[in-house]
Amino acid sequence: MTTEVRTATIIGAGTIGLGWTTLFLARGLRVRVNSRRADADRVVRDGIALFAPTIPGGGADPAELVTRLEIEPDLKRALDGTDVVQENAPENLEIKRELFGRVAAAAPEHALLLSSTSSLPPEAIGADLPDPGRVLVGHPFNPAHLIPLVEVVAAEGADPALVERAADFYRWLGKTPIVPARAVPGFVANRLQSALLRESIHLVREGVVTVEQLDAVVVHSIGLRWSTVGPFQAFHLGGGQGGLRHWLNHLGAGLEQGWRGLGQPSMDEATVQKLVTQADEAFAGRTYEQLVAERDARQTAVLRALAELTPERPEQGERGRNAT
Amino acid sequence: MTTEVRTATIIGAGTIGLGWTTLFLARGLRVRVNSRRADADRVVRDGIALFAPTIPGGGADPAELVTRLEIEPDLKRALDGTDVVQENAPENLEIKRELFGRVAAAAPEHALLLSSTSSLPPEAIGADLPDPGRVLVGHPFNPAHLIPLVEVVAAEGADPALVERAADFYRWLGKTPIVPARAVPGFVANRLQSALLRESIHLVREGVVTVEQLDAVVVHSIGLRWSTVGPFQAFHLGGGQGGLRHWLNHLGAGLEQGWRGLGQPSMDEATVQKLVTQADEAFAGRTYEQLVAERDARQTAVLRALAELTPERPEQGERGRNAT
Repeated sequence: MTTEVRTATIIGAGTIGLGWTTLFLARGLRVRVNSRRADADRVVRDGIALFAPTIPGGGADPAELVTRLEIEPDLKRALDGTDVVQENAPENLEIKRELFGRVAAAAPEHALLLSSTSSLPPEAIGADLPDPGRVLVGHPFNPAHLIPLVEVVAAEGADPALVERAADFYRWLGKTPIVPARAVPGFVANRLQSALLRESIHLVREGVVTVEQLDAVVVHSIGLRWSTVGPFQAFHLGGGQGGLRHWLNHLGAGLEQGWRGLGQPSMDEATVQKLVTQADEAFAGRTYEQLVAERDARQTAVLRALAELTPERPEQGERGRNAT
Repeated sequence: MTTEVRTATIIGAGTIGLGWTTLFLARGLRVRVNSRRADADRVVRDGIALFAPTIPGGGADPAELVTRLEIEPDLKRALDGTDVVQENAPENLEIKRELFGRVAAAAPEHALLLSSTSSLPPEAIGADLPDPGRVLVGHPFNPAHLIPLVEVVAAEGADPALVERAADFYRWLGKTPIVPARAVPGFVANRLQSALLRESIHLVREGVVTVEQLDAVVVHSIGLRWSTVGPFQAFHLGGGQGGLRHWLNHLGAGLEQGWRGLGQPSMDEATVQKLVTQADEAFAGRTYEQLVAERDARQTAVLRALAELTPERPEQGERGRNAT
């Protein structure tokens, strides 16, 4: 099945919705943002102005983008003739399930129905549909217009061709879709993040390092490494010519022993208090806006440097002409 | 106490020793490499030629570097008049303890005694010295000339002024030293790495993702994020104006619940086999040398991009004139 994607519907005008909106527009789509906020028009235009300069591939012109933008508070009208729906409602199963019941009833049959949920299983979100497998998770990372990963998660029994269409669409956007074999709580990236955070909190709780030191350790070692190669490739190369096999034979037993010594912190009041106090100290003297600007400057610099090594931008001529 | 560091002794000519050698030379030091390998001269010159082009701050000229290089198979002569010893012997407590007993007896009293160990506690390495606290861990990350972090770990009761001198020396080299309050097994970065690897292996073992997909998830999301900001700053900003306090109040309970669902894989034969088979598939078609070159190109690009944002290079005039 081949369909051109020309029109997209974004549900919700929060941070994630605005990231998607800006990226979709920058790739040449017509975008309808469905939001009932009284100030939706201003919020969406502000979001586009904020995100457009850092759209991967050299940025985009907000004034050009908004020529293809519509704000549509009525869901049915927002879905009329749409090719893709990307939903970013609050992270609440009742809300999303009810919403997708209405979306499926009103959207064209060929439209991709995608949810940005970071935690809800697709079969639960699609429970009110005749075919619950029609709703797919398309979970981005914040900032959604910038970070390449999209976790595409399907319900058991979902049509593999549908999943492939969704992955193709995200690739066409310039994203890196990954399709896990099944949904597990937290999907993949957030589970990994949570595992690292657990040990981070343990080490601060035990007084081995401060919040500020822990962050510095990550940024100046393993973060750099993992922006370059994943953990398995890192150890595959760490094993020299013998690869991961050599590395695991050499260190596998020690690995399991090391895991037994990792922390299992409790998030009790004293722990929360310690983390918060140290965070306040670590970030004192810089406003939230300054910290965000620093982060985004670094993030953009890293992404640009990597993109220059491996150019994967969609060609202008491909805009609006992707096969899905 | 103020001493100029002019002469350094590197013990061991493996990968880590060669990384340190190249960096020390590039910062203007005279370097004596102590190795009893018959081919030490060739190995060290090859290592310098390999690492010099990617020395942070624009690379270095190998021909210039080797003008300050000596290969000295005799430990006593290698230590004569030295200011800093950086040891990179095999990761074996007997070897390092015996070695530092001899080093302390022969090195000048003012010399910093530093071990690159990734796992041995400093008090055990220094056990044969009159003052066991004199040996400090200075644990780098591979490649040692490139990755900024150095974990500086001292025995309980070590002289804080000595620890500060070691940290100052690494800062002068252009490194980012972090001094944990005490030694814990694996120090800090490798514990975090191990925690992420455990969940990675769990997800592959359970068939949720393949080795290749897991690596892609990390590289295209959390790796990018952590090359930019540490986990605490990421969530501090994720909490908006309310910071980490807001984020933890909002998600702290769910965090602990999520940790209970993380994997505790066993490294049994079937698991090792699955990881190795998938790694062989993932990296098939590229040689070890190609994979290393790809990694280093990406690593260098990321480091360069970040360095351009926050220039922290030592001035030429400072070379060999650091206060320690």
